[in-house]
Amino acid sequence: MAFLPKFDAGGLVTCVTTDAATGDVLMVAHMNDEALRRTVATGEAWYFSRSRNALWRKGESSGQTQRVIEMRTDCDQDAVWLRVEQTGAACHTGRRSCFYRRVERTEADGGARLVFVDADRLFDPDAVYRK
Amino acid sequence: MAFLPKFDAGGLVTCVTTDAATGDVLMVAHMNDEALRRTVATGEAWYFSRSRNALWRKGESSGQTQRVIEMRTDCDQDAVWLRVEQTGAACHTGRRSCFYRRVERTEADGGARLVFVDADRLFDPDAVYRK
Repeated sequence: MAFLPKFDAGGLVTCVTTDAATGDVLMVAHMNDEALRRTVATGEAWYFSRSRNALWRKGESSGQTQRVIEMRTDCDQDAVWLRVEQTGAACHTGRRSCFYRRVERTEADGGARLVFVDADRLFDPDAVYRK
Repeated sequence: MAFLPKFDAGGLVTCVTTDAATGDVLMVAHMNDEALRRTVATGEAWYFSRSRNALWRKGESSGQTQRVIEMRTDCDQDAVWLRVEQTGAACHTGRRSCFYRRVERTEADGGARLVFVDADRLFDPDAVYRK
């Protein structure tokens, strides 16, 4: 069966990347056709940055690369799921996962606040990205 | 800390929903402000369907509801991660997860095919949705 990704108007699919060992969601990002091809071809995660409008190999600045254990696609082929071995931390803030804050209900109507969880920094982003 | 979701031009954030027991990604969908509020308020997953342009309680047609164990948001608050207890199957095709096909490399340049994995149907969609 052919892999026929269904790109959105911007030429992108959504990518969910999880830690192959724990199942934790590390990040949500986007891929264009070239990022998909390079990821499949090399076994390393490549993404497309909407803010920088550029193809991007995960870890090319930070060294925090992702080795792909498995790639899957969903029922309508507009999303992919990468199970990876993450070197260090996935988040640009230095946390293991971008999802380091829990949404907790504060009001019966659905009002909520954020609570930090698993939020230790594994690297110092100022040092790593030399900002 | 306030939860300040960063909605896209269509008023949506991306939602990744995983099985709280296994860590498997069940589905990727979208939420608008009202879907977020109802999910937080009720502890059941609500989404916004772009194709139907409608708010949607997961399982309202199929009975395959999702009880939220935890909700998190990511570093830029444009995505949420739901860990859920899934009743039956998450996918409209009757599979447990929408991600029932693996992307496998067939060519060195990144060409790929799809291989079915974990693709048993837990319900018959024709019967459940009465199409």
